[in-house]
Amino acid sequence: MRSPPASCSEPRKDPMDIEQVVARAAAASRPFAQTAPRERAAALVAAADALDANAGELIDIAMRETGLGEPRLVGELRRTSNQLRLFAEVIVDGAYLDARIDDADPDYVIGPRPDVRRVLQPVGPVLNFAASNFPFAFSVAGGDSAAALAAGCPVIVKAHSGHPELSARTAGIVAGALAGAGLPDGVFQLISGQAHGVEALRDDRIRAAAFTGSTHIGTMLARIAAERPRPIPFYGELGSVNPVYVTAGAAAREQDLAAGFLGSVTGSAGQLCTKPGFLFVPAGTELDLEAAAAVAEHRLLTPGIGDAFARRRDEVSETDGVTVLSQGTVRVDDAGHANVTPVIARTDLATLLAERDRLLEESFGPLAIVVEYPDAAALPAIHRELFPGNLTSTVHAAAGDDIDALVEALAETSGRVLFGGWPTGVSVTSAMQHGGPFPATTTDATSVGTAAITRFLRGVAYQGAPQELLPPPLRDDNPWGVPQRRSPAGLSQKWGALTGAH
Amino acid sequence: MRSPPASCSEPRKDPMDIEQVVARAAAASRPFAQTAPRERAAALVAAADALDANAGELIDIAMRETGLGEPRLVGELRRTSNQLRLFAEVIVDGAYLDARIDDADPDYVIGPRPDVRRVLQPVGPVLNFAASNFPFAFSVAGGDSAAALAAGCPVIVKAHSGHPELSARTAGIVAGALAGAGLPDGVFQLISGQAHGVEALRDDRIRAAAFTGSTHIGTMLARIAAERPRPIPFYGELGSVNPVYVTAGAAAREQDLAAGFLGSVTGSAGQLCTKPGFLFVPAGTELDLEAAAAVAEHRLLTPGIGDAFARRRDEVSETDGVTVLSQGTVRVDDAGHANVTPVIARTDLATLLAERDRLLEESFGPLAIVVEYPDAAALPAIHRELFPGNLTSTVHAAAGDDIDALVEALAETSGRVLFGGWPTGVSVTSAMQHGGPFPATTTDATSVGTAAITRFLRGVAYQGAPQELLPPPLRDDNPWGVPQRRSPAGLSQKWGALTGAH
Repeated sequence: MRSPPASCSEPRKDPMDIEQVVARAAAASRPFAQTAPRERAAALVAAADALDANAGELIDIAMRETGLGEPRLVGELRRTSNQLRLFAEVIVDGAYLDARIDDADPDYVIGPRPDVRRVLQPVGPVLNFAASNFPFAFSVAGGDSAAALAAGCPVIVKAHSGHPELSARTAGIVAGALAGAGLPDGVFQLISGQAHGVEALRDDRIRAAAFTGSTHIGTMLARIAAERPRPIPFYGELGSVNPVYVTAGAAAREQDLAAGFLGSVTGSAGQLCTKPGFLFVPAGTELDLEAAAAVAEHRLLTPGIGDAFARRRDEVSETDGVTVLSQGTVRVDDAGHANVTPVIARTDLATLLAERDRLLEESFGPLAIVVEYPDAAALPAIHRELFPGNLTSTVHAAAGDDIDALVEALAETSGRVLFGGWPTGVSVTSAMQHGGPFPATTTDATSVGTAAITRFLRGVAYQGAPQELLPPPLRDDNPWGVPQRRSPAGLSQKWGALTGAH
Repeated sequence: MRSPPASCSEPRKDPMDIEQVVARAAAASRPFAQTAPRERAAALVAAADALDANAGELIDIAMRETGLGEPRLVGELRRTSNQLRLFAEVIVDGAYLDARIDDADPDYVIGPRPDVRRVLQPVGPVLNFAASNFPFAFSVAGGDSAAALAAGCPVIVKAHSGHPELSARTAGIVAGALAGAGLPDGVFQLISGQAHGVEALRDDRIRAAAFTGSTHIGTMLARIAAERPRPIPFYGELGSVNPVYVTAGAAAREQDLAAGFLGSVTGSAGQLCTKPGFLFVPAGTELDLEAAAAVAEHRLLTPGIGDAFARRRDEVSETDGVTVLSQGTVRVDDAGHANVTPVIARTDLATLLAERDRLLEESFGPLAIVVEYPDAAALPAIHRELFPGNLTSTVHAAAGDDIDALVEALAETSGRVLFGGWPTGVSVTSAMQHGGPFPATTTDATSVGTAAITRFLRGVAYQGAPQELLPPPLRDDNPWGVPQRRSPAGLSQKWGALTGAH
């Protein structure tokens, strides 16, 4: 999910004292960490309800500021509010706490064992850098905020400059709902401006940061996080080109393929982190992509994205060995917005390998390249070489195709492997993984789905604690009813029975 | 767990081609990732058995190279081999895989949901920097190696220069046992020399690194890991001073306190990462620590540790306001080894606050400071200010003491909070947490206990996959019998029932 670098010299919309913002978050940290899951869950649901109640106004602002269409934004807001409700369920369930109890055992094989109990606790104030391309789902009230709030961490969101009014309005609604639900003051704050974001990132009281944006900016911020006197984890979602492989057996379904591919490339004008940038088909595959020319013009999110898209169109189309199937258009309107139609190019594997420096770069916007390959057996090695880190990889195969080696290569290099279907439209569920080897993400953590909450938690063990001093998830009476994993008294030697080793 | 910086110009014991070592690890990565848990478990148990079978020889070498006593080394080797067996159990159990299954649901509240299944998979080759102070448990065959091998990641260990012969012999035994159990060639290799370690750390094929040692070297390596073209996680366990607080009620048990404290400070000559460096007692507490003078002389691990210990002794004892209860001795023998007796100092809180720059630094070796405090109510704030990141914090209280605020402060700043008892002697169990806020560790991850395995895994989601192409833990027939978490079809609105919000 990329957008061009925001300028570091962008004007400050309103002066804000970052020191005070961080101080408020730090002051909220302790009381917020002590809230019971049901209190936090109620607050998340209140925020979801408030967003839904203000949907009309929010969507109007979003359409004006982003150029995205109403149906897309209606769906995205619904996803965003239901994401908050899903995290409410996750907290109340309590499995995310990973509560572990080792009872005392004087005869433990590794030496007498004390009573040790471990639970995940919030890390403290979290700084989230919002994205441009999902003004709801990856912005102020998006997945990173939902996960951090669910974990019990105060959140400071650095607004994306692409939708400032929407950011401010969303933050007002969410902060109001959280306060109305009784959460401490300072659990949810908004700042804006790249310089302010960097200032907050350098503040010792910030304990983790999340980011969705370009590889360039993400890498810069990740280094700032790593070079602080007290380094913190930086969860950045950066670049991904999401290759799709079609076997000879599946290539026969050419009409479905063409329609699905074009839909995935052009939806939201291709401004999606999981847009399929490359479609690999057997040499000679007929794929009718003429419908690309009929796709309606779509405004891009920011002028910077428009400039980058025009540059990528020229770079790709001017490469020797590349045929342009749909050359697309870029029209800058009076307001300075870039309005574009899709660019679809075609080449062969030899050209892609020879021109990889030009062709492999992610193109944010409706641009994709069809690549003809001569030999399916070579795909696993080629994939590993060209695509070492992606959010997704996809294979379209027919029943009986031997794709084991290809799937293994895709799983090694991707966060999510799809069998059929298209990578856009990331489902928000407990099993979703939206994060893969660098540069897809700076760590292997996911930023979508309920596993994202773990990023903002750390383990704390309590040794020999009286029951009344244990956190509720670790108590024998388990007042929150969370899953508790109790260890057996010693080694079970289960491996022996299973392996025959003993 | 600190030791002084190893010299970057230390002579290479034997020339080794790091490129080839890493290439072998990378080649082993794929076949190793595909081994079934029971195969890996059998191999870990074989390695444990081989270490035990060679215990006599290994302990002899360890005594000679480290100066540690036989009982301590016998116990440490037993802990190390049983740690391998414990990880064997963890793999066979399969809960560590965190297998999640979301069945397809066309009516899912966030939009039609495909079949998505997520499992944790090995990250690839891991580089472990061994420690000096646990020649078995935190060295070649120690916790980091056990965790990475259990995860299915090939391991390259960078040997600590403090026990080169033991490192080589241990590596030979482990590698032989793993090979004998049928694991692929290259899953376990040893390198030596700081420059070689850095070269391997910079290699793109290394996917994660673990380290136990000084804050100075750990911070340098962490930055190298963060600044690679493809950054990788660096799990460093650095410095910790492990404060212990005694309430007025508990101070009455002075004899037990004195004996326990001295035992924990002087065991293994204080060369433990969890040695209690500070003991806070109510002003005026009588604590008879004269037994310190009777503790037998103990050789330190390396001459560098001896030099650093002598320096710290002088710095602490020459600080105004510090009284030396036991001044200790440092005798350098003909072989250049430093042989020492304990240094115990006493001061008051005002002096500690005023001289924090001199007094707060970790002292590796048998040195600790008793601090008299005037007001228990101030301890939580003082703890947060002085000790923002530690592996452990301990409180000794009497029944009925109000220590809630203190416990909260300890949990916020530590990986493990102890109630009574002493922090040395870390139990290897599923609930152990050996890692805390920086500088205790570079991330919040644990390096002891079975939760340590997660460091070497990453999530991969499979969307719409045919059963036969799914990894075994995600299949409906669950051939490995691992715990699978299946999501409900939609939102359960459980939060509503529990919170009254709906």
